[in-house]
Amino acid sequence: MSLQLPHFIIKKNNSLWLTEDERDNLKISYRIKEIVFSGQSSFQHVMILDSYDFGRMLVLDGIVQTTSLDGYIYNEMITHIPLCIHPSPRKVLIIGGGDCGAAKEVCKYSSVEHIDMVEIDQLVVDVCREHLPEVSGNLSDPRVHFIFENGVTYVQNRENEYDIVIVDSSDPIGPAKVLFEKSFYQNLYKILKSDGLMVCQSQSPIFHAEIMKQTFIRISQIFPLSNIYTAVVPTYPGGLWSFTIGSKQYIDPDPSRLVYKDTRYINPKVLENCFSIPQFMEQQLKSD
Amino acid sequence: MSLQLPHFIIKKNNSLWLTEDERDNLKISYRIKEIVFSGQSSFQHVMILDSYDFGRMLVLDGIVQTTSLDGYIYNEMITHIPLCIHPSPRKVLIIGGGDCGAAKEVCKYSSVEHIDMVEIDQLVVDVCREHLPEVSGNLSDPRVHFIFENGVTYVQNRENEYDIVIVDSSDPIGPAKVLFEKSFYQNLYKILKSDGLMVCQSQSPIFHAEIMKQTFIRISQIFPLSNIYTAVVPTYPGGLWSFTIGSKQYIDPDPSRLVYKDTRYINPKVLENCFSIPQFMEQQLKSD
Repeated sequence: MSLQLPHFIIKKNNSLWLTEDERDNLKISYRIKEIVFSGQSSFQHVMILDSYDFGRMLVLDGIVQTTSLDGYIYNEMITHIPLCIHPSPRKVLIIGGGDCGAAKEVCKYSSVEHIDMVEIDQLVVDVCREHLPEVSGNLSDPRVHFIFENGVTYVQNRENEYDIVIVDSSDPIGPAKVLFEKSFYQNLYKILKSDGLMVCQSQSPIFHAEIMKQTFIRISQIFPLSNIYTAVVPTYPGGLWSFTIGSKQYIDPDPSRLVYKDTRYINPKVLENCFSIPQFMEQQLKSD
Repeated sequence: MSLQLPHFIIKKNNSLWLTEDERDNLKISYRIKEIVFSGQSSFQHVMILDSYDFGRMLVLDGIVQTTSLDGYIYNEMITHIPLCIHPSPRKVLIIGGGDCGAAKEVCKYSSVEHIDMVEIDQLVVDVCREHLPEVSGNLSDPRVHFIFENGVTYVQNRENEYDIVIVDSSDPIGPAKVLFEKSFYQNLYKILKSDGLMVCQSQSPIFHAEIMKQTFIRISQIFPLSNIYTAVVPTYPGGLWSFTIGSKQYIDPDPSRLVYKDTRYINPKVLENCFSIPQFMEQQLKSD
């Protein structure tokens, strides 16, 4: 009797391995203890794997998205920074963020009254809430409203609704590509209140310098204030990851607002210094 | 006619691949354009490979040590920080550092009159100077004195000689293990002048937290002043990397001393902020 393995997983020397096939010239293989969940949604192949080195991982179409080991880094950094820049965030929109980790962090701020989480794939949310508690925190805060639809469609024809928009997208290939387009950022501008701000992940300064720069330029052209910051996310290629902010009124974070009693990456010093980018990034952003 | 490949390299689908075999549960495979150099020294197997994603790489016993893409990050961060802490560094000792990148950076400081570089393996120095110019800068500064011997032996029975010691070692397995022992740090204390300071790479806070902590504790027990800082090195596991400083008199870097006309990672802001470590590192260093 043999169970069929998802085609992303191979068995070698009596062990299971996931090899990411995203890049032509660099292959990363994770040794797997157990396939916790494997299924196909209308949008993508979804797995929760238990790995030896990174604990449980969310894997979409064979690519690792977040892990128990380091998921908190990305999720803390995409949320606490904008929440410390806006003086009184009450209504927050998260686009993507199916692992629920970003929503979990936003819930730490008592000023926040309402969080709309627009995620295209309900299966991702369901399996992360059930099988990836280290990242999702089994999210069940009543302020979080799940809306399972396309983020691009959602932000069309809405105005003046949110204090903060967090774009927690996957890479700009496949379904997430439109979340990196100028028309999408223009709609984010409209959906924000007159003192609102947005943040998005803007890829690796090492391996996706052009996308990072293009994202920063597009957002800078639409919003009067913009800035870029970094964090180290071990499971993303190159480790260093960039985030871009576009804002209508506020741009400086206030460390006194930071809720960091149980954070594991961010603290007041990291908040103040994450905008100090390496020299090569300064040069990338300046170059023609 | 077939040439024999070094046993670290395999041919698959008409391409050459290097797979690092260091870790049991995570395998990283690099697609290779060309084997530029391959040979065995008395100490280790030495290769220079030209890779698709990272350019030329120094590979020792099958493990990537430094690459053209990101070697400057590590080499700038292990040198400019101590050189900006000491107000007038004149005599510098580098232990290890066979890729010559650290020595290249130290040479940027005009106060430095003499650099002793104690590297156990002359073959590494020779091939990096010839085949890895992006990292070594074809180092030929007359202030650099190469001493090909064991660093542990070199620092025994010497006193009061250097302003700065830079320990640019490989991982604490095999020959570099002794460079993480307390008796070695005690000898560094002795070899430093009365206002001298040392720095060493202290591994990944993510994957080698115990080694990092142990290194920091050992150095803190010997030197009156100590501190820890980080940089992001994409080709090292986890991206985030730690460095530990032990000092007799000075511990604060002075950004006005920084020579950063042609650096690619460090700038005055990075210099000031690299000591702001993530919350989980603070907790690791505090815990019993």
